[in-house]
Amino acid sequence: MGAVKTKRMPRAVREQQMLDAAVRTFGQRGYMAASMDEIAELAGVSKPLVYLYLNSKEDLFTACIRREGTALTEAVRAGARPGLPADRQLWSGLTAFFTHTARHPDGWAVLHLQARTHGEVFAAEVAAMRAEIVAFVTQLILAAARDAHRDPDLPEREVSGLAEALVGAAESLADWANATPGVTARQSAATLMNFAWAGLGDLMAGRRWTPPDDSGPITGATGAQTGRTSPVT
Amino acid sequence: MGAVKTKRMPRAVREQQMLDAAVRTFGQRGYMAASMDEIAELAGVSKPLVYLYLNSKEDLFTACIRREGTALTEAVRAGARPGLPADRQLWSGLTAFFTHTARHPDGWAVLHLQARTHGEVFAAEVAAMRAEIVAFVTQLILAAARDAHRDPDLPEREVSGLAEALVGAAESLADWANATPGVTARQSAATLMNFAWAGLGDLMAGRRWTPPDDSGPITGATGAQTGRTSPVT
Repeated sequence: MGAVKTKRMPRAVREQQMLDAAVRTFGQRGYMAASMDEIAELAGVSKPLVYLYLNSKEDLFTACIRREGTALTEAVRAGARPGLPADRQLWSGLTAFFTHTARHPDGWAVLHLQARTHGEVFAAEVAAMRAEIVAFVTQLILAAARDAHRDPDLPEREVSGLAEALVGAAESLADWANATPGVTARQSAATLMNFAWAGLGDLMAGRRWTPPDDSGPITGATGAQTGRTSPVT
Repeated sequence: MGAVKTKRMPRAVREQQMLDAAVRTFGQRGYMAASMDEIAELAGVSKPLVYLYLNSKEDLFTACIRREGTALTEAVRAGARPGLPADRQLWSGLTAFFTHTARHPDGWAVLHLQARTHGEVFAAEVAAMRAEIVAFVTQLILAAARDAHRDPDLPEREVSGLAEALVGAAESLADWANATPGVTARQSAATLMNFAWAGLGDLMAGRRWTPPDDSGPITGATGAQTGRTSPVT
């Protein structure tokens, strides 16, 4: 109860300080090992005040996931500048993503590792945000296809698959970049563009990699033919 | 104790039946919700026998992770046939991966979702297997670079980044394919080849996507120059 008396600043400010401390502690020590005592100490407040504001360790963790997820989603949206050519949009979106994850490694660890590692409720929180980013990337790929000024023959299902692949690649690279000393956000973004863009770019231009004809035809979504490459000229 | 009397077949066979039941239950219901009662019932044995053989729910889950992880790793290794050109190796490795994850959706859910969602010990188990697959893909990309019969100017660090991107993309696509009715393993592999191979292929041929010169030079690992594309002829 004495804790409430230590309140000298607006609740919103105090709460952000608690969340800052919680993200750092959850991100670095893991959800299980993190204690409310050390989060309160790092935030410079009493433990009862943390409980008064955020209710429980579970609710505090959920608040961290939401804040970090929103910040990341907004950074990516702000980064992908509409109006640029598709490859420039993708480049600026990816640069924004890797810049954000590099600057907020604890937030990224909360979202991509901790939130998926401690139960279905937290995992569902990040799954919803991830779905939003995949939908955004899907639109970006569709816009790129339109920019290509031709029919790139991309069924909706394949575009969804490409967006899933791109998001999965970016997540994996962000983990790796944060664990590898000296890798910059620009380098990660350039690696992913080298990996992905020429592939997507060729696809937009109607040049498809097609599998060898050694195990039966591909039916349905991809529309790929047999043979090694099929540049459509 | 009466449970031991029900043993009519070799322990190894019985144990595999328990693991089959456990993988199915953990994969479909989640680690938390899965009960030892239902696993025993599905395996057609008594609960005490499950505890006698596998010790605890944690140990049973760990045994599932190891069995499924080993099976997946071996399927991918068997799929990527050495001696083929690099794109064919990658195609056959990816096809093997998506075929395995499609045929064993519960095993894949255990490895990629459940094992990372229920504590650091389980997460560390899959992280070690994932590192093995990344190392394997890294070697495959290096072999592809050698096949290209020229110096593709790929620093070791960038190859590691490319391998992380490819593995992350494949994981993400496997989740998506298993959740999307009608997507075949061949389609997933073709989508990823379309996404990734032309990108890697261009890179092997010395054609790099390079970022616009709007935010300073890239230093270090990627070696990318400024400008939009840089085909090295």
